[in-house]
Amino acid sequence: MCPIIYGIHPVQEALKSSHVQIEKILIGTRTPNPPLQSILHLANKRKIPVTFTTKESLGGMTKGGVHQNVVGLVKETPYSDLGEIFSVWKKEGAKSLLLILDGIQDPQNFGSLIRTALGCGVHGIIIPKDRSVGITAGVVKASSGAAAHLPIARVVNIAATIDLLKKEGIWVYGASGEAKDLIYQLDLNVDLAIVIGAEGKGIRPLVKKKCDRLFSIPMKGPLSSFNASVSGGMILYEIMRQRFGKDSSPSDLPSPAEAGFAKAGAIAKEGQEL
Amino acid sequence: MCPIIYGIHPVQEALKSSHVQIEKILIGTRTPNPPLQSILHLANKRKIPVTFTTKESLGGMTKGGVHQNVVGLVKETPYSDLGEIFSVWKKEGAKSLLLILDGIQDPQNFGSLIRTALGCGVHGIIIPKDRSVGITAGVVKASSGAAAHLPIARVVNIAATIDLLKKEGIWVYGASGEAKDLIYQLDLNVDLAIVIGAEGKGIRPLVKKKCDRLFSIPMKGPLSSFNASVSGGMILYEIMRQRFGKDSSPSDLPSPAEAGFAKAGAIAKEGQEL
Repeated sequence: MCPIIYGIHPVQEALKSSHVQIEKILIGTRTPNPPLQSILHLANKRKIPVTFTTKESLGGMTKGGVHQNVVGLVKETPYSDLGEIFSVWKKEGAKSLLLILDGIQDPQNFGSLIRTALGCGVHGIIIPKDRSVGITAGVVKASSGAAAHLPIARVVNIAATIDLLKKEGIWVYGASGEAKDLIYQLDLNVDLAIVIGAEGKGIRPLVKKKCDRLFSIPMKGPLSSFNASVSGGMILYEIMRQRFGKDSSPSDLPSPAEAGFAKAGAIAKEGQEL
Repeated sequence: MCPIIYGIHPVQEALKSSHVQIEKILIGTRTPNPPLQSILHLANKRKIPVTFTTKESLGGMTKGGVHQNVVGLVKETPYSDLGEIFSVWKKEGAKSLLLILDGIQDPQNFGSLIRTALGCGVHGIIIPKDRSVGITAGVVKASSGAAAHLPIARVVNIAATIDLLKKEGIWVYGASGEAKDLIYQLDLNVDLAIVIGAEGKGIRPLVKKKCDRLFSIPMKGPLSSFNASVSGGMILYEIMRQRFGKDSSPSDLPSPAEAGFAKAGAIAKEGQEL
């Protein structure tokens, strides 16, 4: 649960989103720079009260996070439910693309996966209530604000949820190092939910059993794995490529993004320690 | 420059590598657990002296990093040069795959890109001497030790280096948000160097001009970009897919990796603040 969000980009995105309700904006300076002025403008438009306080006070609230002189107090929990995810999918009328994260622990990985999921057209993310980092302030920041735009449901039982997805005609494919099928050998242009397991542990055996198919990503060299958020990026990229790639008409192609142009990510990561 | 590396996985990988020379191992406990025992065994085998000290002393050296009771003092700078990268490439006898990082600032992104590059068969990474994070202890840790296995060259002038690559018959493709060509529309099964720009800024204009082609990654939704290390993962995955994909014989396929199985990454990231 996340009572606060902070940093220019996350607060901006939250102010633009219908998923997040901000109760109050705190500004840590009397002389707001242009990005902060745009936040003041947005807050004014949405009739959200603004309080001017000190940089130090925001530093205390964010426990030393890079708050860039702005903190938002969030009124409601940002979690969605499965119904909302289905409704986003069915409203779009395209093949489903859901992401099930079976126990991601690291806030940077979770935030990065949310950001990538939003950019790859994922309809919603499903996480378990236990053994997983939730939508913390650090996750929202690492997502560059993407958490405000994507429904994220927390469920008690991932295996039971997979049964519900199957009833909707959704295929459930899990990423697993032992799998012989490589990701690009599968037809991903079907109603789909992708399962990615916890860092270091992978998908739990009971959840793995529920998957319709398992696949792996090819890899060279001495290391045993890619980083979880990089793996997620490769998988979601491959799905985009198959769905919108060479054989589709140009109008089917999503707009190009700047590869390596991680404006928001750079902001989100400035505060990290070496 | 990195006088120390720390954490079980990075020290293990460095001990196995011929790129890194470790002068001394410091252990922060008198009762080493099995992973530390395996490090002691490796150090003994390589005749590297080991000193037992306190956890607190390692905490001071690593400035609060998650050292897991082990620090390695590195004898030599881990940077390579262009000649070494060429020799790795020519020894393999495959199409070249080089990565030019034009000003990555964030140690997590740089470390993650090194780890991904190693897993995707990159022959070497080229970074500029200025305006870029170097191989710091934090980068080595975020790379899960991959930095010890991959030649990384620091050059004064990226544009001039690109001219040298072109003389070797290498094509230089740059990732750029404005590019109309999408990554999967290009033939990547050629001698190749990929340029990825700085977070928030992209490739510098002079370097961009030197690129033979520019490409973008398709993207949906309101955000302007993927995270730099995720973009890098998508690009390198696509190159692997084209080089080792459906049409190649199974023996050409690299071994599968556990997607979402980020054992080492989890270690590397444990110390991060929420």
